[in-house]
Amino acid sequence: MKIYFAGSIRGGRNDADLYTEIIDELKKHGTVLTEHIGNTALLNNEVTLTDSEIHNRDINWLNESSVMIAECTQPSLGVGYELAIAMQQNKKVLCLFNTNRGKKLSAMITGQPFYNIAYYNSTKSAFSAIKNFLNKQIC
Amino acid sequence: MKIYFAGSIRGGRNDADLYTEIIDELKKHGTVLTEHIGNTALLNNEVTLTDSEIHNRDINWLNESSVMIAECTQPSLGVGYELAIAMQQNKKVLCLFNTNRGKKLSAMITGQPFYNIAYYNSTKSAFSAIKNFLNKQIC
Repeated sequence: MKIYFAGSIRGGRNDADLYTEIIDELKKHGTVLTEHIGNTALLNNEVTLTDSEIHNRDINWLNESSVMIAECTQPSLGVGYELAIAMQQNKKVLCLFNTNRGKKLSAMITGQPFYNIAYYNSTKSAFSAIKNFLNKQIC
Repeated sequence: MKIYFAGSIRGGRNDADLYTEIIDELKKHGTVLTEHIGNTALLNNEVTLTDSEIHNRDINWLNESSVMIAECTQPSLGVGYELAIAMQQNKKVLCLFNTNRGKKLSAMITGQPFYNIAYYNSTKSAFSAIKNFLNKQIC
């Protein structure tokens, strides 16, 4: 299974360590096309690519993927954009949202029944939601 | 001209006063369908609507609009989602980004040539970019 993982990059890297943990978990279930999102030095590494190259690489990966997992706690324009593109492609999408941060998930996501949403309050419960979601895609 | 203005709501309301100023400027050029985005009490007012009602109202307004102006400085899932939907509809879009904040606009937006982007460092220069963009849509 090819998995597209989405998380905030320029929107804020507060959750980069969490992204790494999620990606490590996802790798037990399939190939993570966007493994670089968990790289804490990512913003420095990507300076060799133009923004157009980054956009086209990511959209090609999204096209190629079987499912999308989006960590949505840290607000991000890019993740919102990719969520809408994934919906156009009728791809199965799981949005993860951490309820411990005092934030509220966008009504554009919660109000769109296309998306599967998992609210979590621990890494363990996030992993459990991921496992349930990915197992359903296989069956 | 019907104008869809997009700005962060649940992603963070730091720029709500700026949104009000932009909306007041946009009203000189046409009808702003999303005038509520500049309302500083918005998060409280919207509790009477379900998230599905908010989503459907906003997407209906986006469908109905002639152009979209998106203030993109404050990262927001909802604005990213709406930008992708506007692109699907082949709507003319202007993204505004404040260069004084030490932030960087998402490569999903800067790397997608569909979007018009105006970088500004003062309200005056933002208004000038809006005027230039809207005048082009009329001609």
